[in-house]
Amino acid sequence: MKKTIFKDLLIFDGSEFFKGTVVSENGLVTSVSRNCHDSSDCDDCEVISGNYILTPGMINLHTHIPMTLFKGVSEDLPLEKWLERIFPLEAKFISPEMVHICGMWGMAELLRSGVTSFADMYFHEDFIGNAAKEINIKAVLGEGVINFPAPSGRSPEQTIEHTVELAEKHRNDPLISVAAAPHSPYLTDELYLLKLKEISDKYSIPFHIHMAESQFEVTNYRNTHGKDEFERFEELGLLCDRFIGAHCVNLTDRELEIMARHKVTVAHCPSSNMKLGSGIARVAEMLKMGINVAVATDGSASNNNLNLLEEAELAAKLQKVSKKDPTVFKSVEALKSVTANPGKPLGKDRGVIKAGAPADLVLIKTDSYEISPVYDPASALLYSSGHSDIKAVFVNGKKVVENGRILTIDEDNLRKEFSKFVERVRKEI
Amino acid sequence: MKKTIFKDLLIFDGSEFFKGTVVSENGLVTSVSRNCHDSSDCDDCEVISGNYILTPGMINLHTHIPMTLFKGVSEDLPLEKWLERIFPLEAKFISPEMVHICGMWGMAELLRSGVTSFADMYFHEDFIGNAAKEINIKAVLGEGVINFPAPSGRSPEQTIEHTVELAEKHRNDPLISVAAAPHSPYLTDELYLLKLKEISDKYSIPFHIHMAESQFEVTNYRNTHGKDEFERFEELGLLCDRFIGAHCVNLTDRELEIMARHKVTVAHCPSSNMKLGSGIARVAEMLKMGINVAVATDGSASNNNLNLLEEAELAAKLQKVSKKDPTVFKSVEALKSVTANPGKPLGKDRGVIKAGAPADLVLIKTDSYEISPVYDPASALLYSSGHSDIKAVFVNGKKVVENGRILTIDEDNLRKEFSKFVERVRKEI
Repeated sequence: MKKTIFKDLLIFDGSEFFKGTVVSENGLVTSVSRNCHDSSDCDDCEVISGNYILTPGMINLHTHIPMTLFKGVSEDLPLEKWLERIFPLEAKFISPEMVHICGMWGMAELLRSGVTSFADMYFHEDFIGNAAKEINIKAVLGEGVINFPAPSGRSPEQTIEHTVELAEKHRNDPLISVAAAPHSPYLTDELYLLKLKEISDKYSIPFHIHMAESQFEVTNYRNTHGKDEFERFEELGLLCDRFIGAHCVNLTDRELEIMARHKVTVAHCPSSNMKLGSGIARVAEMLKMGINVAVATDGSASNNNLNLLEEAELAAKLQKVSKKDPTVFKSVEALKSVTANPGKPLGKDRGVIKAGAPADLVLIKTDSYEISPVYDPASALLYSSGHSDIKAVFVNGKKVVENGRILTIDEDNLRKEFSKFVERVRKEI
Repeated sequence: MKKTIFKDLLIFDGSEFFKGTVVSENGLVTSVSRNCHDSSDCDDCEVISGNYILTPGMINLHTHIPMTLFKGVSEDLPLEKWLERIFPLEAKFISPEMVHICGMWGMAELLRSGVTSFADMYFHEDFIGNAAKEINIKAVLGEGVINFPAPSGRSPEQTIEHTVELAEKHRNDPLISVAAAPHSPYLTDELYLLKLKEISDKYSIPFHIHMAESQFEVTNYRNTHGKDEFERFEELGLLCDRFIGAHCVNLTDRELEIMARHKVTVAHCPSSNMKLGSGIARVAEMLKMGINVAVATDGSASNNNLNLLEEAELAAKLQKVSKKDPTVFKSVEALKSVTANPGKPLGKDRGVIKAGAPADLVLIKTDSYEISPVYDPASALLYSSGHSDIKAVFVNGKKVVENGRILTIDEDNLRKEFSKFVERVRKEI
């Protein structure tokens, strides 16, 4: 791969904005300089300069990527009824081929909006890994563990065994990694939670689970366990800095303290929580307490899109109005929540731009009617930009997106394959 | 203008979706047919068919269009402090040329996102009208009336006089109309409100005003007037079906009843209310009571974008979560709130597709990764589509936007002129 110099651009490195120059070579960022007039030109390299913003590739820390197929089938319903509608469709349609094709459709949407890594939770995740390699995006595979046989046909014991196989297989993969992924406190027994925690520790991989999503769930849990989810999880020794709790909407003060103490990461999914009427997560308090907050999209069927920057925008606005305080969750904090913060539980220097980190980069134009003027780059990115402002997206230094086109796959063929699944679903709904 | 046949498309007419054919000629819709295989082809006309959705041109019922210039200058502040930061900049920069150029920049953004009409409230509105004619968008000019001399240099009396001139001048203009536009109950004395109501009645034009935006404003009003804003406005005889109340966030049950009784229209601006921490308008109750709710963007400086469909998406999600009820504010209702509903106080058959209405139309592609699959077209448009899905926008039958390009102006020149203002502001902030 050619050496690339991103010269004299406005750079967001995952924590702040500055004018500078970034050099990438062999898939890595090799230098970051605040010298605006860096003279590191060279003969055989690409130089990119102009009115661009360069950001780390964004990280979507909680999604169910093949659910692109079910986008719009279950509208205006609360979580429990939404699931009742989705589960039979999943039972009918989930297959290795389905997760490959419909997953790739979602990955294309992610990449077009500047996402270069995503943590998934679904079934047949190995095939999602294949699709991710093909399109060249980083996937954290989470084979969902539930008490009953999964749509993949596996029992919980088999799924746990399969998680170990996946972890072994992808140990040093440049794109694919693995998470232990129990579905939730209500669909995954403690026995399984504990086994998955062992695996998570052994392989040093994330423990990715839905937590405290709806009030119904939380009340039920308290009634059956005599305590709240995070209280019990602490007792079981499940919490640590590789713990990713998706949603975390309905929590007590005590639970927030537990989360802060164990340095867990929250994958906050505002669109899904709003659309399903689940509630407003206490993100402003979480941030104040130093809890690591990532913003994520959840699956396409409850959002109904995968634009992560739009999600961060929504998260910021939602906290401001819910606290009636426009000073909470500032633009830069919201940008961190889709870059450096979700990078923490994943390790591997993701979500930041620094020497030695992988060259996962997003190059953003600043001249559209929508984004311009850029007086405050954090605010411009968060509130005003859209995916059409993205000029190019790089994953491990390789250019994957340019002007909205995905360069790594045959887009027409993917469209054709995806449409076949869509037509089959259309007959069922 | 050539006759255009939009053949066998999925049509949203402002109230429901159906498969059908729309014919436009000489700037008007001449027929709407639910016959999917309409054979009204002809020799000398354009036929558009394929996997498109056709919607009415959307209507942004409350904005301050030249404030594109101040996008991002006043972040993370509550309304009162936000105004303190904006007012001096406005005093320094507002001029006929500024509103023309910066207004046109905003109009381009509106058009690109499918908006064909907007109700504005600002200063030097006649120049906004000039820009609107140049770019070919429908503007409802609202020259803001405040108690002190306006940035246009006019006293309130002069501004009221000027409103009459504007109303006379634009009586039968195909693009430009006028509203009486007192700023707010707190910046516009009752004497002026009453004079503007007379003008609104005489010319049958809207009465466009900010209402009950922040809790601070509402508490102050109650303390000084001994009653709430809508109670007092009813006493003064200001309310009718041409009344557009922007924001309407902090209202009592009694006020909601008054609003319903007088058939006023609410221009709900969720982004602005969220970002400034003003609160969540009681839209679900309003809809239940039959109040006409439009969704609008407010100005670019408090949003910070002018994408109306994104605003409707936000409005729907916000009501669902604030009521913890995903069944409120369904997708079709949200689409009405940016088409047929805002059309009502404007008259002139705007925001609907029907025979005899102006051919203000938006043609939307349905094949992007983002919008597809389209099982539920209302949900797909509302939650999944973006401005890059728009193929073309027509105003009075004239194609104004095609694949994101504005066809009616020299875009490079506009960019050059707008940049001059931006550089001047950059030196001040």
